[in-house]
Amino acid sequence: MRLSLCAAVAVLAVALAIPAADLGAQEKSADDTMVSLGAKTLAQPCPVWVIGSYDKAGRPNVMTASWAAICCSQPPMVTVSLRKATYTYGNIIESKAFTVNIPSERLAAAAAYFGAVSGRDVDKFAASGLTPVKSDLVNAPYVKEFPLVLECKLVKTEELGLHTMFIGEIVDVKAAASILDAKGMPDVTKLKPFLLAPGNADFYGVGASIGSVQELGESVKK
Amino acid sequence: MRLSLCAAVAVLAVALAIPAADLGAQEKSADDTMVSLGAKTLAQPCPVWVIGSYDKAGRPNVMTASWAAICCSQPPMVTVSLRKATYTYGNIIESKAFTVNIPSERLAAAAAYFGAVSGRDVDKFAASGLTPVKSDLVNAPYVKEFPLVLECKLVKTEELGLHTMFIGEIVDVKAAASILDAKGMPDVTKLKPFLLAPGNADFYGVGASIGSVQELGESVKK
Repeated sequence: MRLSLCAAVAVLAVALAIPAADLGAQEKSADDTMVSLGAKTLAQPCPVWVIGSYDKAGRPNVMTASWAAICCSQPPMVTVSLRKATYTYGNIIESKAFTVNIPSERLAAAAAYFGAVSGRDVDKFAASGLTPVKSDLVNAPYVKEFPLVLECKLVKTEELGLHTMFIGEIVDVKAAASILDAKGMPDVTKLKPFLLAPGNADFYGVGASIGSVQELGESVKK
Repeated sequence: MRLSLCAAVAVLAVALAIPAADLGAQEKSADDTMVSLGAKTLAQPCPVWVIGSYDKAGRPNVMTASWAAICCSQPPMVTVSLRKATYTYGNIIESKAFTVNIPSERLAAAAAYFGAVSGRDVDKFAASGLTPVKSDLVNAPYVKEFPLVLECKLVKTEELGLHTMFIGEIVDVKAAASILDAKGMPDVTKLKPFLLAPGNADFYGVGASIGSVQELGESVKK
């Protein structure tokens, strides 16, 4: 996604673009030698999202995924990569639908659990005490207690190797009223999503604001 | 990605899986009415990564992307979605390569700037004072001052709508020695990546650990 600025600001900015902000000169850290770590999936941060689906018998299942992102703005789409071995893989192939459920920090244990056991062996909703709700728009369940949910229709799959990419069109987003800001948008400080940092063993929360995207960008242009 | 546990723990966990932890019962918030927000790209958190590429004349360019994720573990792959209108789009189509550069918080202004102007109009490296380095493995530049870099060969593109998904195989990861932990992995608390929360105007840092993924998962199983 290219970050947006209003047209007037953008025109002004281009006109003023001179190398006044020499960010490179500030960057003399203790040890900036670049070390090769090999061909690994070491990108940070990654989201912790929970994928909801029904199996052939109509039983709801959930699994946790971090190889996932928004992948198109228009139409709005999200991608999630799953291994063929997962129960969710077969569910989505059959049902052509899934939900992306975004947990708050206080439900981090549920998200970790949903990633540690298989729906073939366990009813994860029953085991965690959380509640499946049938989407009224797609053939998939969402987690009632998770405050932000994307309801998705499968539009494409892409076999990549160990993982298969599922691309879904977002047909609606549902949010708990308690996490909305004054403009009716999800407030990250109320939602409190969390993240995975491959290479590290813990989940991490979202920290403080480090500034307005627009103002940060303008600080370099001026 | 399904979160991993060692086999012994997994077997034990399945054997013990009983609904002792009733997480649902803890969840009676002030207002949990679900509100429909429409078909929008409102998923959180999203990464803030900077994509490096060369144009036909060999000039290095960078742009900021948040519609991006790891998408396969084996072979290791990353996906980034870009609009056709971006300068980077044509660069990657031609060069079949790109880098994913992960900035630290202290370089948030550069990342915001790289997302606010086009490489057609401005030499973003010169304007920011940051340094392009040619990858020795792929035909793309990386940002010397950014502490974590994925060097990628383009393997597939997928036209989705406003955005096109670029899927790259990660051929190497390079990290500044100063951000590595004792095991030689990137330490998120030293890297200090940051994130975008669509619906909010600011960048946000990574907060504190909220616990070990393995221990959080086991707390539900027991």
